[in-house]
Amino acid sequence: MHEARPRRFLRHPAQLVVLGFAGAVAVGTLLLLLPVSRTGTAGADLVTALFTATSAVCVTGLAVVDTGTYWSGFGQAVVLALIQVGGFGIMTLASLLGLLVWRRMGLRSRITAMAETRALGLGDVRSVVLGVARVSLLVEAVVAVPLGLRFWWAYDYSPGRAAYLGVFHSVSAFNNAGFALWSDSLTRYVTDPWICLPIAAAVILGGLGFPVVLELRRQLRRPRRWSLHTKITVSATLVLLVAGTVFVTANEWRNPATLGALDAGPGRVLAGFFQAVMPRTAGFNSLDYAQMHEGTLLGTVVLMFIGGGSAGTAGGIKVTTFVLLWFVIWAEVRGEQDVEAFGRRIDDRATRQALTVALLSVGVVTAATVALVEMTRLPTHQVLFEAVSAFATVGLSTGITADVGTHGHLVLTLLMFVGRLGPVTLVSALALRERRRAYSHPEERPIIG
Amino acid sequence: MHEARPRRFLRHPAQLVVLGFAGAVAVGTLLLLLPVSRTGTAGADLVTALFTATSAVCVTGLAVVDTGTYWSGFGQAVVLALIQVGGFGIMTLASLLGLLVWRRMGLRSRITAMAETRALGLGDVRSVVLGVARVSLLVEAVVAVPLGLRFWWAYDYSPGRAAYLGVFHSVSAFNNAGFALWSDSLTRYVTDPWICLPIAAAVILGGLGFPVVLELRRQLRRPRRWSLHTKITVSATLVLLVAGTVFVTANEWRNPATLGALDAGPGRVLAGFFQAVMPRTAGFNSLDYAQMHEGTLLGTVVLMFIGGGSAGTAGGIKVTTFVLLWFVIWAEVRGEQDVEAFGRRIDDRATRQALTVALLSVGVVTAATVALVEMTRLPTHQVLFEAVSAFATVGLSTGITADVGTHGHLVLTLLMFVGRLGPVTLVSALALRERRRAYSHPEERPIIG
Ligand SMILES: [K+]
Ligand SMILES: [K+]
Repeated sequence: MHEARPRRFLRHPAQLVVLGFAGAVAVGTLLLLLPVSRTGTAGADLVTALFTATSAVCVTGLAVVDTGTYWSGFGQAVVLALIQVGGFGIMTLASLLGLLVWRRMGLRSRITAMAETRALGLGDVRSVVLGVARVSLLVEAVVAVPLGLRFWWAYDYSPGRAAYLGVFHSVSAFNNAGFALWSDSLTRYVTDPWICLPIAAAVILGGLGFPVVLELRRQLRRPRRWSLHTKITVSATLVLLVAGTVFVTANEWRNPATLGALDAGPGRVLAGFFQAVMPRTAGFNSLDYAQMHEGTLLGTVVLMFIGGGSAGTAGGIKVTTFVLLWFVIWAEVRGEQDVEAFGRRIDDRATRQALTVALLSVGVVTAATVALVEMTRLPTHQVLFEAVSAFATVGLSTGITADVGTHGHLVLTLLMFVGRLGPVTLVSALALRERRRAYSHPEERPIIG
Repeated sequence: MHEARPRRFLRHPAQLVVLGFAGAVAVGTLLLLLPVSRTGTAGADLVTALFTATSAVCVTGLAVVDTGTYWSGFGQAVVLALIQVGGFGIMTLASLLGLLVWRRMGLRSRITAMAETRALGLGDVRSVVLGVARVSLLVEAVVAVPLGLRFWWAYDYSPGRAAYLGVFHSVSAFNNAGFALWSDSLTRYVTDPWICLPIAAAVILGGLGFPVVLELRRQLRRPRRWSLHTKITVSATLVLLVAGTVFVTANEWRNPATLGALDAGPGRVLAGFFQAVMPRTAGFNSLDYAQMHEGTLLGTVVLMFIGGGSAGTAGGIKVTTFVLLWFVIWAEVRGEQDVEAFGRRIDDRATRQALTVALLSVGVVTAATVALVEMTRLPTHQVLFEAVSAFATVGLSTGITADVGTHGHLVLTLLMFVGRLGPVTLVSALALRERRRAYSHPEERPIIG
């Protein structure tokens, strides 16, 4: 292993990632503090600017002010740029870190498509960056077309405006940013499959994570040759989508303020499906979460907490982590020494890592929820929903985001930052130390966090 | 290792424990269904009898009906007998199972006081049973004396009645059953240290678990020679008591319906301390939980979830499990291969077991909370409090126990049973398979679950 070159470029990945994101948030905050960013004459206050910049960089989508009226055209452009930087940065950095981890695990052959040199040098970095950009642009373009046509033909937007709407929401969806150009998100299109389905498709693809998308592009028809990581991510995503759709649809079917207000069965199922896709972790909504049953909100909390695929713009503990937990628990209950999944033995380190990520996340969310309830005296279920939404960078809300006060906003800001970077930095910190071990087992490990 | 004899008595500990407890619940339910058990002429309905029997056997203390008025004298005697059977059974079985696990781990020398033969035969069983009975009676007698004197001198009870009250609450406290002879629990004694402190002491001692109590009795003055399990349990108990007291006291200090109603500072601190002791997991209360801030309830949920010491009548995931989680997370964040605590390396199996117990518990509580909110449409924070109280066999309630409906009662019954036996049976199932491994490391493992 030629270790000299990679370490020159990525000597301390964990610190680099944290510094990079903190820097983007700082620059964004400063730009949003400029009077030119705000409508009217006064500038934005510090906490609002910090919250908005963090929400954009972490592609969360929570907002304490109405993006369309509070920020000027310049301010909105800053927000959009931060989303782009954040989403692209996460995909690229996570992929590079995944590459580092995988290579150290002797699994380099699984991702040969990305790089041909043995060490992670400039060539690798460039190929990852280009790969991410190419896949992103491709998906975004493919999704933007039906959206734009639909906005043009069915909703009487001018061709130019329709194209802009199509591109904007396609980009926002693939990056799991969840920012929409209407103040009530996509509520007005709740029963329109030509809007909802392309957006859901972009969200799901983006949420799979870059390594999975890349592998699917290379060998979609040969699932037997997929890596363990891809197998777990794809199958768990399918299960969660079906289960989530059934749960939301059945639960809200007769709620007159949500699904009950829709006429037809297919429309209700479409809305149920949409609200099952978005917690993982895009943050668009076509139903009003403030009107849902508490049970639906709690189920959505679980979906948000699980999140999407690793090394993408999705948040949460990630589906691979979640699935590994089940295999670990299964092995533990049966008293088995080794954890096995899809015919592969899972490295002990990976299982411990998955368990740690999950428990740390439970701990962080619990502590934040208790703190926010203490500060705001708002109902527990709304606070829990908000905290998990921030931690998993989802962006859904029951409408209390603006009401939690300055300290509450700082807690949510911290949650977004920690939730976005925590697991990634953990993995990268581990990746660095992994080198000290000699790996002799024929093992395979999915990405965790 | 002479394995022949123990296997005759404990061939399948997991099944034995489950069957034993299910049998006790079944017998108790049948007895409570007899018309003689109920006041008036009609008998109790099935779910009420099942819930009450389960609550008593699992020393939980949740009640769907008022024990003092719904049940006849005979019925109350049945409940008390079930508590005794349950508490004693848990202590004894857990200690026996702990003995099995420890011995297989080569740690027999740590508990030589309990048994002298190398195999776990009749002699061992007898010595454990006698040890549990002796320690229980000793603590209960020592605690009953000040309680009885106080009831006699300060509250004008007759000597006989005062003695009965002293013994009853001492037994209920040491077994962490939390049943009181007043319908508002110990609310009337909220500022009386002569009532609250002896009961708190009995609860804390009983909650440490039998192995710890035994070891403390043998070498209280030589903490350096304590086993890892005792070190962890004692130090974590102290930390949780101090942190819980500060949290409850500070949080409720100005709440006019709880601490704010009390005159003096010391009285408020006493009440805060009492409410910090009882979630782990006795279930007495001297303040009204229905009047507390949601933040205090959430903090109490965390305390209840953590619970008390292993191999005792306390519930929850147990403090050793909780502490191990911190050491695991610490090792993981630092990227270290081995988990170390108090100068000892923790067996990989133990860490995975701790993580599994914690995560399974989070999963069970989450699922039950979502289900109960779905069924009852009651507020999330009250349902979560109730679910954790049942799962950790605490018995505290915000007052919704009777209002969750028949299906809700069945869910709570299941939670109590699973929460009481789940971790124990897991450990015992593992204990059986542990034999297949050859242990060569100089490791030590605390009891988990
Ligand atoms: K989002
Ligand atoms: K109890």
